[in-house]
Amino acid sequence: MSMQNGTTWTWQSRAAEKRRQRDSLLPEPWRLSATAVQASLGVQQPAETKQNSLVDLDVVRRAGILTARELHITEDYTVAQLAEALQAGRLRALEVTVAYCKRAAIAQQLVSCLTEIFFTQAQARARELDALRQQGQLAGPLHGVPVSIKDSFQVRGVEATLGFVDNLGRGPSKENSCLVDVLLAQGAVLYCKTNIPQTLMTADSHNNVFGRVLNPLNTSWSAGGSSGGEGALVAFRGSPLGVGTDIAGSIRIPSLYCGLYGFKPTANRIPYGNQVSPSLPGLHTIQASAGPIGHDIESLVLFMRAVLAARPARIDGTALDVPWREAGSLFTASSAARPSRKLRFGVVPEDPFFPLHPPIRAAVRSAVHVLQRAGHTVVPLTAAEALVAQCYDVAVQMFALDRTAMDTLARSGRGGGDIGGGGGGGEPEPPVPCLATLRRAMREVAWDQVRSAGPGGGQGVQIPDTRKMQGADRLDKLAVLNVTRDEIRRRWARGVWEAKTLDAVIAPAYQNTALEHDEGGAGAYTSLMNFLDYPAINIPFGRATKADLDLADGLVVPSGSTAPVYRPETLEGVPLAIQLCTTTLRDEECLAIAKVVDACLNGHGSSTARPRM
Amino acid sequence: MSMQNGTTWTWQSRAAEKRRQRDSLLPEPWRLSATAVQASLGVQQPAETKQNSLVDLDVVRRAGILTARELHITEDYTVAQLAEALQAGRLRALEVTVAYCKRAAIAQQLVSCLTEIFFTQAQARARELDALRQQGQLAGPLHGVPVSIKDSFQVRGVEATLGFVDNLGRGPSKENSCLVDVLLAQGAVLYCKTNIPQTLMTADSHNNVFGRVLNPLNTSWSAGGSSGGEGALVAFRGSPLGVGTDIAGSIRIPSLYCGLYGFKPTANRIPYGNQVSPSLPGLHTIQASAGPIGHDIESLVLFMRAVLAARPARIDGTALDVPWREAGSLFTASSAARPSRKLRFGVVPEDPFFPLHPPIRAAVRSAVHVLQRAGHTVVPLTAAEALVAQCYDVAVQMFALDRTAMDTLARSGRGGGDIGGGGGGGEPEPPVPCLATLRRAMREVAWDQVRSAGPGGGQGVQIPDTRKMQGADRLDKLAVLNVTRDEIRRRWARGVWEAKTLDAVIAPAYQNTALEHDEGGAGAYTSLMNFLDYPAINIPFGRATKADLDLADGLVVPSGSTAPVYRPETLEGVPLAIQLCTTTLRDEECLAIAKVVDACLNGHGSSTARPRM
Repeated sequence: MSMQNGTTWTWQSRAAEKRRQRDSLLPEPWRLSATAVQASLGVQQPAETKQNSLVDLDVVRRAGILTARELHITEDYTVAQLAEALQAGRLRALEVTVAYCKRAAIAQQLVSCLTEIFFTQAQARARELDALRQQGQLAGPLHGVPVSIKDSFQVRGVEATLGFVDNLGRGPSKENSCLVDVLLAQGAVLYCKTNIPQTLMTADSHNNVFGRVLNPLNTSWSAGGSSGGEGALVAFRGSPLGVGTDIAGSIRIPSLYCGLYGFKPTANRIPYGNQVSPSLPGLHTIQASAGPIGHDIESLVLFMRAVLAARPARIDGTALDVPWREAGSLFTASSAARPSRKLRFGVVPEDPFFPLHPPIRAAVRSAVHVLQRAGHTVVPLTAAEALVAQCYDVAVQMFALDRTAMDTLARSGRGGGDIGGGGGGGEPEPPVPCLATLRRAMREVAWDQVRSAGPGGGQGVQIPDTRKMQGADRLDKLAVLNVTRDEIRRRWARGVWEAKTLDAVIAPAYQNTALEHDEGGAGAYTSLMNFLDYPAINIPFGRATKADLDLADGLVVPSGSTAPVYRPETLEGVPLAIQLCTTTLRDEECLAIAKVVDACLNGHGSSTARPRM
Repeated sequence: MSMQNGTTWTWQSRAAEKRRQRDSLLPEPWRLSATAVQASLGVQQPAETKQNSLVDLDVVRRAGILTARELHITEDYTVAQLAEALQAGRLRALEVTVAYCKRAAIAQQLVSCLTEIFFTQAQARARELDALRQQGQLAGPLHGVPVSIKDSFQVRGVEATLGFVDNLGRGPSKENSCLVDVLLAQGAVLYCKTNIPQTLMTADSHNNVFGRVLNPLNTSWSAGGSSGGEGALVAFRGSPLGVGTDIAGSIRIPSLYCGLYGFKPTANRIPYGNQVSPSLPGLHTIQASAGPIGHDIESLVLFMRAVLAARPARIDGTALDVPWREAGSLFTASSAARPSRKLRFGVVPEDPFFPLHPPIRAAVRSAVHVLQRAGHTVVPLTAAEALVAQCYDVAVQMFALDRTAMDTLARSGRGGGDIGGGGGGGEPEPPVPCLATLRRAMREVAWDQVRSAGPGGGQGVQIPDTRKMQGADRLDKLAVLNVTRDEIRRRWARGVWEAKTLDAVIAPAYQNTALEHDEGGAGAYTSLMNFLDYPAINIPFGRATKADLDLADGLVVPSGSTAPVYRPETLEGVPLAIQLCTTTLRDEECLAIAKVVDACLNGHGSSTARPRM
């Protein structure tokens, strides 16, 4: 790591140096020319004819970096097929690893999705795995499968900065995160870590160190967040399987934005231990979950099964030691995708304080019709049952107890660390624009009405305003919020699941579809499942056509409610999706039911690998 | 509920009025004469010939209140046999209920084990269950089985005061605790609630409202706590199956003291929702568990299976939705008590800061020999691996964040409520003596040494002293303690379970055996399993003979360590036990392995129903 002696470091130069170090790890033959990048991103094209989809433009083919076989490997295999071919020896771990490293390298140059690159180590490991297989052994169910991971996971010898300038130069991780150990033990090949938003608390993956992740489906759109680098990389097929984390939607939102399947398991079902965090360590409020992002549900199941087969609780004392069940209580083992009975779905309604963008509303409506036509029962929930705004209120108050992320931003002005150790007292890195967008959105909500017992608000649950608690410290406030949360979880258990005998609940995927950069709404519809600790999946459901968008009603945002600006003219082809959840620890049922729903919505055995519309 | 108009209420008169109301619910024909009580408790006997065991004295037979058939019902059935006979119709719910109500009534008059009595409602329910069975239906796996519950559980129409004077007159519970709903749904007959210690944080079940629970094995001993009323009632066979709660040993300690099997499951495996609590509601530090106390392990398994078969998470949003497994991974289904392989046991050693009473030490040693002779492998752990004192230090610091219980004591001086509503400003109820004993014990420990890196202390884990954290509020302190806890759980996972490939860990049951009243030690050896959230069971292992006690070494308590006073001359016949735990959520394995151990220690199919020594 180089030091620029005598130079006064600024946050800008520290960030630039980190990017330079990262980019130096992109092998020369895999680099695109500036012209190629500009052409791919349509920089020279007039706005009206500009084609932003890197997928449609087929930039990877045109770059000529991947061989035909490497294109085939990265484009024509599901994860299950990849794992099977590697185990059977039809594919070698090394060729698969090189193919994905190349494609990730191209992705990085076009959509800024990577934070850390360790292609060399990955290829060395792939060689070891190939040697092992030649001796007739397999490392595990993920033998040779490349897996990309979010920057928050620690890999020995690699940095974990979270895109905070203040974290630059702290040196590489000394220990793996527990999940990293498990993935390696099961045979996975790790080769890169992926980009996130500053503070991890916005849906636009943009920070001052690693820049902004673009959406490969349309580079004028955000890739979502906080696991936005994963979303972009997987959508670009620079990774067959990504691992994100989700405390308010951070796996599901990029999956929605990038047209992918993303699963947030019950907290601690997948080991979460030994990650770096932007929050106060040990502050246990809402628990984040680690989980997979992929092109089909089977990939997500394969990930869950492989990780839990290693019994991660043996090395992570905070992981739940619950073996993976094959959801046998719902389906017979021999016909996993054919339910022995029709299912009952609740539907989370539009919340008056968080109006849905029309394409999101249309996706839920359309999904309901399709499910009903398939013979399933759909039970609409009322706003008073779903308590979307109320749960979000409590969640936001819980998050507000912690100022650590903002303190970390401020600390970047104090210098320190390897890069910029000599700086001292410079200007701190500024917040990214999306943070201001989010703050503005929060101010638009009439929280008093959310809490009031009146129509549309309160909903019969006493929602506290902890800012008004006289003489209370933060622990008193947290306790009051926890009591409210337990009461809401009890209401959901008794009043929704039990009273209506539901198998699963369908919800809007988010308040909006993918948006232009710096925009980003409130996470009310996604944080609901973190608040309740329900496993939840984003199920893609086609793309918005121009006709859809023209037909859609406009967006009305009454005073006291909030929604991001709706610009249908920018949204042609935007991925649509629905969300589906089950109750805590019913992860198996969540994915099994999601398969049934996916078959209804997208046809049997569908995969985002094959374009559908 | 009567009001004494014009009278100035004191805490004493409020407590006396509550006792009067409770006692009025003891049917006249079931009351013992004052002479009979005095004779049973040996009040008139000279100390040297005083026989304190109510069991040996056979007071129930002599009282003449139970018929021969009722004696047979309460003495000759395990819970499994009782349930089977009720289901088969060989016993009627009403006769079983009446038999246990009578015996509980006698127990109450001799050992003060009850707080609330609802025998009339129980008999009405029993009649309904009998009618249901006559129609060929069964309510559930607990059809007609009487179950006693700790005072903290709420039963609609019955008070839940926790023995706090300040809680008197608040009126009956309006809603059942979730577990109460589940037990009723599974067919159980609830008929009484049981006594606890003031604040629930000591091991001597004594409070100013309901008095002190005596140990039926020897009334000069404490029955343990905090579920001491359960321990005494079950030991007296006034209940076939008791339900306690345990945040630091409160199920296991009374089980040890009273010679019973007691199981603390993983937190929230058994639904904990909607209990009354002496602590700040919503303060989630160490989670308490609800669990069963009984005369054999099969009773505990039956309880777990019956409760989880109801899928309690459907009505309790905080319950873990993990179905009961039949521990098939360990044992073949057809031979549940015959392991297919020999087992590996770790052993928690004596911690230098918490010297063991000699009979407790001898019980662990002896158990180890028996297991080794049976071919199992025993792996001693070091103090640095077990971290008993260090975990206790963190746990005590966590508990110290909450002053609610002491505030509730103080509030009793302010009057209020139905009983004593006119009081106002009187003297508050005083702390019970055992609280002072505990406080003194805590002062004897050299906590700085526990935390230091030196020999016997620290053990390489950084244990914080949150009292010395400058400028930190309680949330900062809790966060630091949580980080320490997660680190210790990781060490246990990797350094103990994984590194030594253990099936289970054996530990001292507690620091001491049953003690005389007002004594009571620190819960270091029991709170360890709450701190780690491991399922743990108390397995009785005989009684101390006079010869055992004479042979035992004395107790040495070096400066800086603490132990209750050891008076071997008072301990003849005291129950011995060991503790056994597995990892979080391996409740099934904990009970399955406990059966194997029990068979080694106590002979196959043993039950405390049959005296062993």
